Amino acid sequence: MSELWLDQVKWNNDGLVPAIAQDHKSGHILMVAWMNREALQLTVQEQRGIYWSRSRQKLWRKGEESGHVQQLHEIRLDCDGDVILLQVEQLGGIACHTGRASCFYSVLDGAHWIPVDPVLKEPGSIYKKSENPADE
Amino acid sequence: MSELWLDQVKWNNDGLVPAIAQDHKSGHILMVAWMNREALQLTVQEQRGIYWSRSRQKLWRKGEESGHVQQLHEIRLDCDGDVILLQVEQLGGIACHTGRASCFYSVLDGAHWIPVDPVLKEPGSIYKKSENPADE
Repeated sequence: MSELWLDQVKWNNDGLVPAIAQDHKSGHILMVAWMNREALQLTVQEQRGIYWSRSRQKLWRKGEESGHVQQLHEIRLDCDGDVILLQVEQLGGIACHTGRASCFYSVLDGAHWIPVDPVLKEPGSIYKKSENPADE
Repeated sequence: MSELWLDQVKWNNDGLVPAIAQDHKSGHILMVAWMNREALQLTVQEQRGIYWSRSRQKLWRKGEESGHVQQLHEIRLDCDGDVILLQVEQLGGIACHTGRASCFYSVLDGAHWIPVDPVLKEPGSIYKKSENPADE
């Protein structure tokens, strides 16, 4: 397969691009993570959300520990080529390492960020390695 | 107003954070741009999408030239505090400088990014200054 489509992505100085995962049915934004070239290529190849973990400096197959795999439905690129949008089905209905459906669970209310979405599952019961609950 | 909520945002090394603008009704993702502290504060104060243009190195009141203002409905922050999500009403129904509803108009089809969404209005008729059609 030609790699022109990968060359057309505008990678930042670290070789990364932000990727938004959106629920393909509800339109809810689930999370934003980063991809390097390999992560984007593998996402397409394996038809699931695969990212680059900046904190762990390695590929992160979303759901590898939790089972909360993101099955790919569509990939889009924005007009200046520097943001990726994934339409996914979020297995288990939980994208966030806090056990919530979405990472965007805090709303600005006056001068405070208020968590408004419920924890669906305790993180301790999601992750095998309790010492490293955060996916990223 | 206390500025603790601004301190709780995890600004990157350039003092910026990516912000997603999403249509508050349809859930369509309109665009992603960047905000500095001032842009985020002004977005809340003026209840409209205000960004930091990295290319022009100045504040960018979305719609200042085009009239395509983004009226704010809600602001969310993600779990690690490094991405902002705006729920907006996109006046004029056009967020992209190409004259399309959304900047995410290209879909990966095999090994090609294919523009699939229509141009609703020619950019030349949107922007007064034809020499600088791009908002960012």
